[in-house]
Amino acid sequence: MYDSLRTNLSNLKNNKFFELLVVAVIIISALEIGAKTFELPDSAVSITTVLDVFITVFFLFELAIRFIADDDKRSFFKKGWNVFDTLVVVVSLIPVDDSEMALLARLVRVFRVLRMVSVVPELRVLINSLIKALPQLGYVVLLMFIIFYIYAAIGSFIFNDINPELWGDIAISMLTLFRIMTFEDWTDIQYETMEVYPMSWVYYMSFIFLTAFAFLNMVIGIVVGVMEEEHRAARAQKEPSLSELQQELREIKEVLSELQKK
Amino acid sequence: MYDSLRTNLSNLKNNKFFELLVVAVIIISALEIGAKTFELPDSAVSITTVLDVFITVFFLFELAIRFIADDDKRSFFKKGWNVFDTLVVVVSLIPVDDSEMALLARLVRVFRVLRMVSVVPELRVLINSLIKALPQLGYVVLLMFIIFYIYAAIGSFIFNDINPELWGDIAISMLTLFRIMTFEDWTDIQYETMEVYPMSWVYYMSFIFLTAFAFLNMVIGIVVGVMEEEHRAARAQKEPSLSELQQELREIKEVLSELQKK
Amino acid sequence: MYDSLRTNLSNLKNNKFFELLVVAVIIISALEIGAKTFELPDSAVSITTVLDVFITVFFLFELAIRFIADDDKRSFFKKGWNVFDTLVVVVSLIPVDDSEMALLARLVRVFRVLRMVSVVPELRVLINSLIKALPQLGYVVLLMFIIFYIYAAIGSFIFNDINPELWGDIAISMLTLFRIMTFEDWTDIQYETMEVYPMSWVYYMSFIFLTAFAFLNMVIGIVVGVMEEEHRAARAQKEPSLSELQQELREIKEVLSELQKK
Amino acid sequence: MYDSLRTNLSNLKNNKFFELLVVAVIIISALEIGAKTFELPDSAVSITTVLDVFITVFFLFELAIRFIADDDKRSFFKKGWNVFDTLVVVVSLIPVDDSEMALLARLVRVFRVLRMVSVVPELRVLINSLIKALPQLGYVVLLMFIIFYIYAAIGSFIFNDINPELWGDIAISMLTLFRIMTFEDWTDIQYETMEVYPMSWVYYMSFIFLTAFAFLNMVIGIVVGVMEEEHRAARAQKEPSLSELQQELREIKEVLSELQKK
Repeated sequence: MYDSLRTNLSNLKNNKFFELLVVAVIIISALEIGAKTFELPDSAVSITTVLDVFITVFFLFELAIRFIADDDKRSFFKKGWNVFDTLVVVVSLIPVDDSEMALLARLVRVFRVLRMVSVVPELRVLINSLIKALPQLGYVVLLMFIIFYIYAAIGSFIFNDINPELWGDIAISMLTLFRIMTFEDWTDIQYETMEVYPMSWVYYMSFIFLTAFAFLNMVIGIVVGVMEEEHRAARAQKEPSLSELQQELREIKEVLSELQKK
Repeated sequence: MYDSLRTNLSNLKNNKFFELLVVAVIIISALEIGAKTFELPDSAVSITTVLDVFITVFFLFELAIRFIADDDKRSFFKKGWNVFDTLVVVVSLIPVDDSEMALLARLVRVFRVLRMVSVVPELRVLINSLIKALPQLGYVVLLMFIIFYIYAAIGSFIFNDINPELWGDIAISMLTLFRIMTFEDWTDIQYETMEVYPMSWVYYMSFIFLTAFAFLNMVIGIVVGVMEEEHRAARAQKEPSLSELQQELREIKEVLSELQKK
Repeated sequence: MYDSLRTNLSNLKNNKFFELLVVAVIIISALEIGAKTFELPDSAVSITTVLDVFITVFFLFELAIRFIADDDKRSFFKKGWNVFDTLVVVVSLIPVDDSEMALLARLVRVFRVLRMVSVVPELRVLINSLIKALPQLGYVVLLMFIIFYIYAAIGSFIFNDINPELWGDIAISMLTLFRIMTFEDWTDIQYETMEVYPMSWVYYMSFIFLTAFAFLNMVIGIVVGVMEEEHRAARAQKEPSLSELQQELREIKEVLSELQKK
Repeated sequence: MYDSLRTNLSNLKNNKFFELLVVAVIIISALEIGAKTFELPDSAVSITTVLDVFITVFFLFELAIRFIADDDKRSFFKKGWNVFDTLVVVVSLIPVDDSEMALLARLVRVFRVLRMVSVVPELRVLINSLIKALPQLGYVVLLMFIIFYIYAAIGSFIFNDINPELWGDIAISMLTLFRIMTFEDWTDIQYETMEVYPMSWVYYMSFIFLTAFAFLNMVIGIVVGVMEEEHRAARAQKEPSLSELQQELREIKEVLSELQKK
C-alpha cells in the first residue's frame, strides 16, 4: 500500500499542473508579504491571517509529498535546497505569541519567496553557477580584504583626530573605505583631511586605483574562467586534435613507402 | 492600371532620393518638436502649426505608398515596424480641441522621432538585436527582482519606523533599493538606520554585493551569448570538422591496406 | 646643395638624440604651461616669457626640418598630424598685444602638449585606433542620441512647470538627462517630480535601463570588433582552411582509386 | 654541523605545520594592529606590548631560518619579496622612544599584514600578474595623463576666477578633474561655471567622454592581453599548424604520383 502511495505521490510531484500550483502558491505568499507592508483595513488583515495558515499547511504537504516520493530517504537532507525548504517550513510552524518574536516570524516568512529559486530549475542553475564561481574568486577577495585592512589601519591611525565618526576605529574606517570605493561623497572626506594633511590625496587616489585594479582583475578572472569552461566543453565533444591527424598522416606515409619498395 | 501604379510606387519607394526625403522630413519633425519646447514668438508658432499639418500629410502619403507597393497586403501589418508607423500616423490624424488632450497629442508627436529607427535599416538591426538579447537575460532579471523583493520586504519591516519616506511600504522600499544600487547618497540612508540598528550595514553591503554580482553575471551572459552566435556563424560556413577529416584519412588507409594485400 | 641639405636634415630628423630633444622641449613647454597657473614672482614670469620665445622658435625649426626632409612635399599636408603641428606652430607666431587675446594665446599654447602624441609613435597608434573605432560605434551613438532626444522632449513637455532650471527646454533637459545617466543626485530630481506625478519613476527607470543597455551594447560592439580584427589577422597569416585540406585529401583518394583499378 | 643545521632548517621551512604557524602569527599581528585602533583598557595595552615583542622576535627567527636554509645566499636579496620581508623586520627592531616616531613605528607595523602576500603563494602569483600587466598599460596611462594635464591647464586658465578652491592652479585642477571623472558632485561644479560661461558644458562633456573612452580602451587592452597569453600557451603545447598538415599531404601526393608512373 505504501509503495502505491509513493508511486502516486511521485506522479503528482512530477505533474506539470502541480508544479505550476506550487509556483502559484509561492507567488501568492510573496504578494501577501508585500501587502503586509502597506496599511491594511481589518478585513484584509484577517484574510492574510487565514492565507498564512493555508500557505504554511500547503508547503508542509508539498514537502511531505516530495519526501515520501523520494527513493533515497537518507540523501534527501544532503541536498542543500531540501534542507533550505525544510527549515523555512519548520520555522513557519513555530507558534508566535510574543509581539517581539512577531518581527522575526515575519522575516522568516520573507524567505518563502526564495523558495521560488528552489522550485524553478532555471533559477537553481543560475544560483548554483554563482556559488561555483565563488572559490575561483576567493584569493582576489582575500587580497581585496588585505588592501582594505591596511588602508583602514593607516586611516584610523592618522585621521582619527580629524573625524572620529569616519575614522574612529578599524571597523568604522573599513566602512568609510567601502563608501569611498562606491565614490559616495568621497571628496568631502578627502577635503576634510587635506586641510590637516595636504598630501592625503595620495592616500585616497592610491586606494581608488588599487581597488579598481583588483576589481578589474576579478572581472577578467570570471570572464577567462567562463571561456576556459567553454573550451573544456568543446574538447569534451571528442574532436580529434591536430596532433592525432598528423599521426594518421604519418602512418599513411609509412604504408606508401613500403608500397614503393615493392 | 493598378499594377502599373504599384510598380511606379514600388520604384519610388526604393528610390534613394525618396528615402533621403523621408529621413529629412523625420529630422524636420524632430527639430519642430525640439523648437516647441522653447518660448517661441507668435510667427514661429504659426509656422510650426503649418509644418505639423505638412508632416502629418507627408507621413500619411509615405505610409500609403509603402502599403500599395507591398506585394503581400496581409502580412503588411504582421511586421512590428509597419504597425508602429501606422499607429504614429493614425494618432496624429485625430483632431485635438481640448487643451488637456494637447499634451497627449504632443507626446504622440514625439514618437515620430522613433520613425528614424524604422526607416534607417542599420538602426532597425540594432534594435532587433537588442530585443533578441532580452529573453536570454529573462531569468537573471527574474532573479534580480526576487533579490529586490526580499530586501524590500525586510527593509520595510525593520526600517519602517525610522524613515517612512524611504521604507514606508514594499514599493517605496524597492525604489530606495534601486537608488542604493546606483550608489546615490546611499550612505545617508545607511547612517540613519545604523543609529538604531548598528549592524544594519550588513543589510546594505550584502545587497550591494548581490546585485553587483548578479549584474556581472548578466554582462558575462551577454558576452558569452554574442560569442556563441559568432561560433555558430563560423560553423554555418560549412567548414568540415576535424572529425570529418579524420574519417577521410581512415578511408585512405583502408584503400592503401587493400593495395598492400595485392 | 639642396639635396645634400635634405639628406643631412633627414639624418638629423631620424637621429635618436634629436627625437629625445623634441620630446624634452615638449615636456618643458608643458611644465611652463603648468607653472603659469601658479602665482609666480616677477623673475619667474620673465623666464617663462623667454622660454616661450625659445619654444616657439624651436618648434618652427623642427617643423621646417621635417618639411624639407620630406620626400613628397605635396602629401606632407595630407597627413593629419602634420597639419595639426603646423597649426599649433603658426598660431603661436601671431603676436598678442590685446589682453583679451592673451587668454586665447594661452589656450593655443596648451595644445602644444598634444604634440607629445604626434611625436611619440606609440601614442599616435593609440589615437589612430581610437579614431578607427569611432565609425563602428556611429549607429549606437545615433541611437543613444535619439533616446536622449525623445526623453528630453517628453521631460520638457511634462516637467517644465515643476523646475524650469532642469527641464526648461530640450537643450537643458538633455543636460539634465546626461546628469541622470551619471547617477549624479538623480534621486533629488526624481523626488521633485514624483510629488506632482507619482508615476514619474517610470520615466527615470526606463531611461536608466535604456541607456545602460545601449552603453553595454557599445562596449560589446568594441570587444567583438577587436576580436574580429584578431581573427582577420590570423587569416592573413595564410593558414590553409580545413576545406582546403579536405580538398587535398579527396585528390589523394582519386589517385588511389585509379591505382586500385590498375 | 652547519650543513646538518641547514638541512634541518630547510625541512622545518617546508614543513606544512610551520607554514601554517607563520600565517597564524601574521593574522595575530593583523588582529593586534586592528585592536590598537580601539580604546583599550590598560591590561589589554600591556598584552599588546608583549605580543609586539613576541611577533618581532618570531619574524626575525623565521627570516633567519629562511636565510640559512637558502642554498644561494647571494641571490637571496635579489628576490623582491625577501627584501620586503627583511625591511619590515629590520624597521620593527628600531627602538622607538620619541612619541612622534611612535606613529611612524605603528605604520610600519601595519605593513606586516602585507607579509601575508609574501607567504601565501597564491596571493604572490596574483600580485606578480598585476605587476606584469602594468607596462602593457603604460602608454594608455600616459595618454590619460596628457588628457588630464591639458584639461587642467585649460580649466585653471578659464575658471580660476570663478572658484579658486577648485581651479586655483594646475595641481588643484587635476584633483578636481579626478573628482569629475568619478562623477562625484560634478554637476555642482558645472552649474557654477555655466553661470559665467554658458557653453562650459562642452568642457565637462568632452572630458567625461574622452576619459571614459580611454578607460574602456584600457580594459579592452587587458582583456586582449590576457587572451593572447592564452593563445601563446596553446601554441606552446606544440600542436602542429594546419600549414604543416598541408605540407605532409603534399608529400603523400608526390609519393602517389611516383607510384602511378611505375
